[in-house]
Amino acid sequence: MPDAVELIRAKRDGGQLADADIRWLIRGYTGGEIADEQMSALLMAIYFRGLDAAELHTWTDAMITSGERLDLAALTRPTVDKHSTGGVGDKVSLILAPLVASCGAAVPQLSGRGLGHTGGTLDKLESIPGWRASLSNSEILTALGQVGCVICAAGAGLAPADRKLYALRDVTGTVESIPLIASSIMSKKIAEGTGSLVLDVKVGSGAFMRDIDSARQLARTMVELGGARGVRTSALLTAMDIPLGQAVGNAVEVEEAVATLAGDGPADLVAVTLALATEMLQLAGLEIDPKSALEDGSAMAAYRAMISAQGGDPDASLPAAAHTAVVTAPGTGYLQRLDALAVGTAAWRLGAGRARKEDPVSAAAGVICLAKPGDAVTAGQPLLELRTDDPDRLDRARAALAGAVSVGPVPPPLVDPVIERIA
Amino acid sequence: MPDAVELIRAKRDGGQLADADIRWLIRGYTGGEIADEQMSALLMAIYFRGLDAAELHTWTDAMITSGERLDLAALTRPTVDKHSTGGVGDKVSLILAPLVASCGAAVPQLSGRGLGHTGGTLDKLESIPGWRASLSNSEILTALGQVGCVICAAGAGLAPADRKLYALRDVTGTVESIPLIASSIMSKKIAEGTGSLVLDVKVGSGAFMRDIDSARQLARTMVELGGARGVRTSALLTAMDIPLGQAVGNAVEVEEAVATLAGDGPADLVAVTLALATEMLQLAGLEIDPKSALEDGSAMAAYRAMISAQGGDPDASLPAAAHTAVVTAPGTGYLQRLDALAVGTAAWRLGAGRARKEDPVSAAAGVICLAKPGDAVTAGQPLLELRTDDPDRLDRARAALAGAVSVGPVPPPLVDPVIERIA
Repeated sequence: MPDAVELIRAKRDGGQLADADIRWLIRGYTGGEIADEQMSALLMAIYFRGLDAAELHTWTDAMITSGERLDLAALTRPTVDKHSTGGVGDKVSLILAPLVASCGAAVPQLSGRGLGHTGGTLDKLESIPGWRASLSNSEILTALGQVGCVICAAGAGLAPADRKLYALRDVTGTVESIPLIASSIMSKKIAEGTGSLVLDVKVGSGAFMRDIDSARQLARTMVELGGARGVRTSALLTAMDIPLGQAVGNAVEVEEAVATLAGDGPADLVAVTLALATEMLQLAGLEIDPKSALEDGSAMAAYRAMISAQGGDPDASLPAAAHTAVVTAPGTGYLQRLDALAVGTAAWRLGAGRARKEDPVSAAAGVICLAKPGDAVTAGQPLLELRTDDPDRLDRARAALAGAVSVGPVPPPLVDPVIERIA
Repeated sequence: MPDAVELIRAKRDGGQLADADIRWLIRGYTGGEIADEQMSALLMAIYFRGLDAAELHTWTDAMITSGERLDLAALTRPTVDKHSTGGVGDKVSLILAPLVASCGAAVPQLSGRGLGHTGGTLDKLESIPGWRASLSNSEILTALGQVGCVICAAGAGLAPADRKLYALRDVTGTVESIPLIASSIMSKKIAEGTGSLVLDVKVGSGAFMRDIDSARQLARTMVELGGARGVRTSALLTAMDIPLGQAVGNAVEVEEAVATLAGDGPADLVAVTLALATEMLQLAGLEIDPKSALEDGSAMAAYRAMISAQGGDPDASLPAAAHTAVVTAPGTGYLQRLDALAVGTAAWRLGAGRARKEDPVSAAAGVICLAKPGDAVTAGQPLLELRTDDPDRLDRARAALAGAVSVGPVPPPLVDPVIERIA
């Protein structure tokens, strides 16, 4: 039988872990035979030493086989999903899932909740009265067959090893490791049973990956992992130096998503959504231009059906915040920067996000970006609207925004939010 | 209040931990507020990133102040202690403490038990009928005043942070870190209250430090830590590629120590013991040649008084093993190598050591080296005598010795076991 301390030392010293050892570690940790303190030491060693391709495949596979795997074979439509590594104002899933479903694919979007400065798709949708995140496997299959898309919580049966490992990484400073991130994402997505997968790997101040090289490496690692397990996988690297769209929060993001489905979305959000939709449809083998589905109302119809199918009222008014405040332009000229991390942190502090996974979030809290980089602004003009239920939170939100905005005399260069494709 | 995850991440990313943060971490971990899995991740990050001089001083100081400190001020003799980083056949303490005491110093040798292939001084002495390792603080002071030396277990009140941290490091692959080793040793020795300290840093296959550079670095780090806390500290690097002396085990090492005190010790053991004694007496300000105390019987008298003071009978016969076997010379010529790690591992497997800290050890088990490198040997001549209570252990002990011995046509170069002094 392998010895946990010897395996930790082997990885620490740059060695390769054998297939059987990795499976023993993941199984033992999931089953509670390997202690948290041993696994966290191993995870930190992996942070420094990495996992090579063979180790990473086994690690990911061991996480998949730690639980059940959804069987979507009964669906007649091709299945395709998207996963974002997380950004500020990233409400793309809310638009994309019904959009791609309205083009003929089935989108089984099993999602998570937010932690830290990036929001979670489930938190956003839960601001809709009546909507529920938890579905049984048969409810998921029914929704996919009837509506073509579902956004719901991943059940406890999918990749339980990842659930336990992620909770441990969160409290031990071992989140930021490319092989650990890649195996966490891909184990869940592969277990979910999708036939194709597009990864939206965010790059920039508001993203997990701050630089393009790390983002490329993460994207390539995940594309490779998906392909090896028979899931057609590609990735788009997209910019996350400024918030995506104008709304950052929960209800405010749902409202912006609905506006986008109605044809009135901010340009950067529309561009990213359509690029991802095109990529998804291509992988799914569907030769349809998603733009038409956005324009002819079929995406909106799918969205309304999806919300209703999970108990939500698509026509209900969403919670509004009791208190607002504004941040104004520090000068006259063109808005140069609007730092995504700062805006995300401000929205978090206003109540839109959580510090611990058991914390509740406020549906109404958030930040509205009244101007985006490139816009002409006048000194004193409102740039950001802060919304919260608790006025005591405004000061700390303002503090997060110190230095987040700059104004200059010439317009900044226009940047395409879609940086590159990796497949 | 500091946040454990942020501090782990800071160290992981190569940052320096602030004084207050280190004290908060050590206090919180000792008190149980910081979880094992967080501390083990931090320890692994320290393994990779190290601790700079300021961090290490604070870390060590926080471990010292986690418990009580022995007050030896009432003693009229100068206090001086020795610590060895652990080797195979290292029974030096048993000879050195009474030898230096008989020269006029007080030697408060608070020791530990063995783990793995290196034995523990307390385990060796416990093979003497009646001898007990646990003394109260006032018993320690009485023994130091009356006999001049004491070898006993460190009480639970001394550096409890180190006790808890060492147990964690042992199961998480984070033992082999120079700052963590140095702070562990020095916190205990400083808390013990000695005025001077000589470190025996072993180098070679049977030691913790396999290469001279790591050994030097560890020695310098500890000498510096001691000096900064007002403990006159120096170090000798000594060779540990072959066992020290001929006996490896518990009772067999006590017998060899007594023979050495009687003037009949193996040359390498005598050389290392006298070099350490000279160093200790120098630091203690006593101008005495320890050789005379070995020759005139005063060291033996101090040894007998020390054993008696702790309930042991210095004249009792020691446990003998029920089973013996020999390993013979593979050829005729001169013994070239006798690998310390292999011999230590064989003795451990015969029952002399423990795999877990709660395991018992066998007093009688061990290995006798009938020849040492440089000796002329004839093919088939017994080289090693294996002793055990349990004949089933012989096969695994023999397996540990595969390749440990080599015989060649010319005598190997003579090596001085004392390599260098660091002060």
